Amino acid sequence: MKALVYHGPGQKAWEEKPKPELIEATDAVVKILKTTICGTDLHIMKGDLPDVTDGRIIGHEGVGIVEETGAAVSNFTRGDHVIISCITSCGKCEYCKKGMYSHCEKGGWILGNLIDGTQAEYVRIPYADNSLYHIPEGADEEALVMLSDILPTGFECGVLNGKVQPGDTVAIVGAGPIGMAALLTAQFFSPAELIVIDVDDNRLAVAKTFGATHTINSGNEDAVKKIMELTQGKGVDTAIEAVGVSATFELCESIVAAGGHLANIGVHGKSVTLHMETLWSRNITITTRLVDTITTPMLFKVVQSKKIEPKKLITHHFALEDIVSAYDTFGNAAKEKALKVILTA
Amino acid sequence: MKALVYHGPGQKAWEEKPKPELIEATDAVVKILKTTICGTDLHIMKGDLPDVTDGRIIGHEGVGIVEETGAAVSNFTRGDHVIISCITSCGKCEYCKKGMYSHCEKGGWILGNLIDGTQAEYVRIPYADNSLYHIPEGADEEALVMLSDILPTGFECGVLNGKVQPGDTVAIVGAGPIGMAALLTAQFFSPAELIVIDVDDNRLAVAKTFGATHTINSGNEDAVKKIMELTQGKGVDTAIEAVGVSATFELCESIVAAGGHLANIGVHGKSVTLHMETLWSRNITITTRLVDTITTPMLFKVVQSKKIEPKKLITHHFALEDIVSAYDTFGNAAKEKALKVILTA
Amino acid sequence: MKALVYHGPGQKAWEEKPKPELIEATDAVVKILKTTICGTDLHIMKGDLPDVTDGRIIGHEGVGIVEETGAAVSNFTRGDHVIISCITSCGKCEYCKKGMYSHCEKGGWILGNLIDGTQAEYVRIPYADNSLYHIPEGADEEALVMLSDILPTGFECGVLNGKVQPGDTVAIVGAGPIGMAALLTAQFFSPAELIVIDVDDNRLAVAKTFGATHTINSGNEDAVKKIMELTQGKGVDTAIEAVGVSATFELCESIVAAGGHLANIGVHGKSVTLHMETLWSRNITITTRLVDTITTPMLFKVVQSKKIEPKKLITHHFALEDIVSAYDTFGNAAKEKALKVILTA
Amino acid sequence: MKALVYHGPGQKAWEEKPKPELIEATDAVVKILKTTICGTDLHIMKGDLPDVTDGRIIGHEGVGIVEETGAAVSNFTRGDHVIISCITSCGKCEYCKKGMYSHCEKGGWILGNLIDGTQAEYVRIPYADNSLYHIPEGADEEALVMLSDILPTGFECGVLNGKVQPGDTVAIVGAGPIGMAALLTAQFFSPAELIVIDVDDNRLAVAKTFGATHTINSGNEDAVKKIMELTQGKGVDTAIEAVGVSATFELCESIVAAGGHLANIGVHGKSVTLHMETLWSRNITITTRLVDTITTPMLFKVVQSKKIEPKKLITHHFALEDIVSAYDTFGNAAKEKALKVILTA
Repeated sequence: MKALVYHGPGQKAWEEKPKPELIEATDAVVKILKTTICGTDLHIMKGDLPDVTDGRIIGHEGVGIVEETGAAVSNFTRGDHVIISCITSCGKCEYCKKGMYSHCEKGGWILGNLIDGTQAEYVRIPYADNSLYHIPEGADEEALVMLSDILPTGFECGVLNGKVQPGDTVAIVGAGPIGMAALLTAQFFSPAELIVIDVDDNRLAVAKTFGATHTINSGNEDAVKKIMELTQGKGVDTAIEAVGVSATFELCESIVAAGGHLANIGVHGKSVTLHMETLWSRNITITTRLVDTITTPMLFKVVQSKKIEPKKLITHHFALEDIVSAYDTFGNAAKEKALKVILTA
Repeated sequence: MKALVYHGPGQKAWEEKPKPELIEATDAVVKILKTTICGTDLHIMKGDLPDVTDGRIIGHEGVGIVEETGAAVSNFTRGDHVIISCITSCGKCEYCKKGMYSHCEKGGWILGNLIDGTQAEYVRIPYADNSLYHIPEGADEEALVMLSDILPTGFECGVLNGKVQPGDTVAIVGAGPIGMAALLTAQFFSPAELIVIDVDDNRLAVAKTFGATHTINSGNEDAVKKIMELTQGKGVDTAIEAVGVSATFELCESIVAAGGHLANIGVHGKSVTLHMETLWSRNITITTRLVDTITTPMLFKVVQSKKIEPKKLITHHFALEDIVSAYDTFGNAAKEKALKVILTA
Repeated sequence: MKALVYHGPGQKAWEEKPKPELIEATDAVVKILKTTICGTDLHIMKGDLPDVTDGRIIGHEGVGIVEETGAAVSNFTRGDHVIISCITSCGKCEYCKKGMYSHCEKGGWILGNLIDGTQAEYVRIPYADNSLYHIPEGADEEALVMLSDILPTGFECGVLNGKVQPGDTVAIVGAGPIGMAALLTAQFFSPAELIVIDVDDNRLAVAKTFGATHTINSGNEDAVKKIMELTQGKGVDTAIEAVGVSATFELCESIVAAGGHLANIGVHGKSVTLHMETLWSRNITITTRLVDTITTPMLFKVVQSKKIEPKKLITHHFALEDIVSAYDTFGNAAKEKALKVILTA
Repeated sequence: MKALVYHGPGQKAWEEKPKPELIEATDAVVKILKTTICGTDLHIMKGDLPDVTDGRIIGHEGVGIVEETGAAVSNFTRGDHVIISCITSCGKCEYCKKGMYSHCEKGGWILGNLIDGTQAEYVRIPYADNSLYHIPEGADEEALVMLSDILPTGFECGVLNGKVQPGDTVAIVGAGPIGMAALLTAQFFSPAELIVIDVDDNRLAVAKTFGATHTINSGNEDAVKKIMELTQGKGVDTAIEAVGVSATFELCESIVAAGGHLANIGVHGKSVTLHMETLWSRNITITTRLVDTITTPMLFKVVQSKKIEPKKLITHHFALEDIVSAYDTFGNAAKEKALKVILTA
């Protein structure tokens, strides 16, 4: 089969690889129908994730058709259409039993990282019963690719951890795909104000069409000052960090109201400065989380009920075999006005 | 009357001051029976809290007898024995309605800070109906002084925010009076392991008698290494910071398990380094809080039921008029083996 | 002034009464701008509430202008436009401190019940600081009458107690004004399915326009069978009882899924049969609640943000002096297709 | 092997049966070391559970040694000492993922009910990875038999569902083994008052030694009146029903305070009368639950830390081959002063 293979920093190729086979009784092999590229994949390509080694097939999102199942797989059979979760869950370790699949002792984020991933014609999925989700006939499979990673990430790490409540004022710092996923899913809880902050005017304009009530270009404006004006000097109930650098994290520290929540989604490469000299008495809660994808069934039901249109996040389409071009487009997101790209096999 | 008055950094005196009078209809004047000294009072004396000005009567803890009440006070009358809360709550602002008395728009921590406090023969208590608590006949009033500040602080900021649960492993960093209050009240939730970390062997020995299952002198031992050994490399479910400096906060960051809680109690004067490069994917929760004293009624019931003996925290007794000596003892806590001192009027 | 006065079962009159005056320092007198009639008022008129005695002015909902305030009132001054809460909260008893204003030791539901109410030109409001809410300039005051009782009742007793979550299937039994308020506010949490059950086709048609995804006329159809079909035999995550008789309560028992919630809103005059022989092992939660109106500030923010249009609930308008006719219309709700009537002074 | 076999109402025998074998790859076969008899087993013997058919081996509690494991079992190997959970969890259905193992689509309570159970020399355990728990060397295996059913049942259905909090007043109605398990585990949360109600003075005396602060013999005393005296007319924060008949359930309804919890543990054969005419406005929560055993790991940690001594519940010992005598003793619990009997293979 063909697959996108990482060959060290800056080196990737769409090339021939052996078709994956069942290894464990709990495995399934899935034929990919649609996949996508994540910001994390760009980091891998730069060499930022040393665990990813030469020869690895990249990708941790996608929908497909079950091709083959191991003897112990009982929820799925050949021919089933499935969403592939970016997180692999064994369903029987201490962490999986607590719903913390991200830290599964045998799974977690391994797809396209420690084992071969979804940017390929076929992928082997360990612990298939706990790591795949059924797609009913007639569902919009392109939209459901957003359930592999981006929607649960925005929802679990940003919205649920941020304890968004009806009537709240919420700020999202960073209007990339993950920030947008937080923006869409925050609306499940009917906040009164949804302020999006970024430095890219195009993304802010898109955020408005996705439900932002206010946008702030922090390149042009003093974001803290603007938010204090919008909130009568109180700050926001929830600040969602969706960038992953110290400046945006500190911005969140500056705008969170007394009693509020700072929910981190961003992947950080360095430490940040936490201003405990002011925050110690502010009764705030800061959370971090690698997505568990435990809300995938909930999100699926909301998507099916049309309360949310995840397809809004899709800006570009490519054939799977053109994935190298897709990387170019996605890697140049600001110029290309790209959020998520769909690759169809 | 006589009172302990702050006269600028390093300057204090037990001197004559006018007896306080009712100002608002919601005030009460309370005759002090017993009061104590808080670590924060030492900071005030050093000049660390610029809001506290020359001439201020210090102190925010104590029990007393209601001397006089304003026309709008309905929960208390002259002669009632009362616990004075360190936090003043108006009961009718946005924050009080949310149970966040610490941020009361007209109250919060004002006693012995922005208005005259309890290290005096009499004190005026604003919003008495919401800021005092009844003491029934026969109760041990000395023990109840611990309910003014130290027990709710350890419990709310450390134990409740830290989400201590039965069977959990909890570490408390700092075995001063507040850390000890967290140690005592953590046991309300039956954790399996209670590890106390400090640099003072005497305090660690006391912690053992208060219920610590393990103690670590971080001056002699590598606390992170020791805790990882005790927890099979997982870290603790809850790390409670009860010191207020960067080193102890970072120690807490290093020992909190994936999915765990870091509950800050310490008063910080400087920022700390938050290691988001490792924590971003660890699903942890960090909390800060100025005590709300919303649990005072709950704590009172537990104290009355003898599930906890707050008197254990009291190491020294003085007459109120000898408060300057009491400050010397408390200010020299390590040498004097002091936790809380009781001053009796 | 003029007021609607109860004179025993079946007897009421719009008649002259003394204008209310301040009694306590915490009182306010409010000039009524708009009020409405509640289903409970109809019960009072039938003589079902023996606590309501001859001579009582009825009514517990409305908006108005503050006319006069007692010396201890600090949140409001003459001229302020206000929402009157149906629940009076002293802000300083054990229950108020827990947010359970419904059981306030000195308040609770007393307006138009134990003390004179809002169907009058003026009303005295005890504990005004905790029982009134500011209306900002330019707000739609008619819509805000729905915040006195009906929206917090539907939301707190039905939606919050029923733990409605994104993607859930919710059934509301009873499409009267309170059921409709639950229907509108349930949507704050984005359930996937909202099934409304009633015997009145007009109300069911209105429910559809308010967001019901399915309606069932239980007079014509087997509601249990229909719901089991809609839910693949599982039942609903949340069943909200908004009628108050045994048959509808038992219907809720029959349709609640394993692990689900049965949230009672209805005012019951008799006991109901609880089928513990089947429910004991179904992991369900049944809740009862007299509204606390603790969510009024939250609801106000959602209304101001236009996430909900409470005016939809208003079907008829009258002058306040025509309140007797308004009672006729509201008392004949099915024929008149009435939900809420607005009376304007 | 030998096993206790049900042969229709009133008919049981300790007789030869084939040793169980692995059927599915997820099965384990466990050699029983210690087992016990549950009140439910007595119901089975009376013929009250028609799902249990002639020839079934009874029993759903016990500890043992893993004899053999299927190919898909990875948490356990031959020779491991294990606690057998009374609830079988597949770990991969909708309910197991929600932590509601009691309603597992392929498991739930099947042991000694729909499949052969633990009152035998060997037992086959389906989904072993999710239905067994490791016993470390040196642990007290007799005490751990209490973790199969009785402790998680008292804790989950009574204590957790009843939301017991520090300082609370808790009443437990029924001082049989399950009520006693609730009594022991309620103390994890430090309630101030623990009132136990029963008609058997011996059991009430035992309850005192297990931590009850008050006991009431409802055969001799008016339990409602007594509890209202003890609670200043307010009632209890949590009422735990551990009998399963209408009279005791209605007693719980009568004693639960406004805002309180009524947690049902009892297995009911008939409906009960729910006094909604008084309860509708009391803001109470009623819960039902078949134990999920999701807290078994937590309970294990608390037991290991010696915060609780489950052995207290064991009153009698028998050899496994003498199980018919053990049934006689346990079936005559009042006279024999029996709580739990231990059968040793």
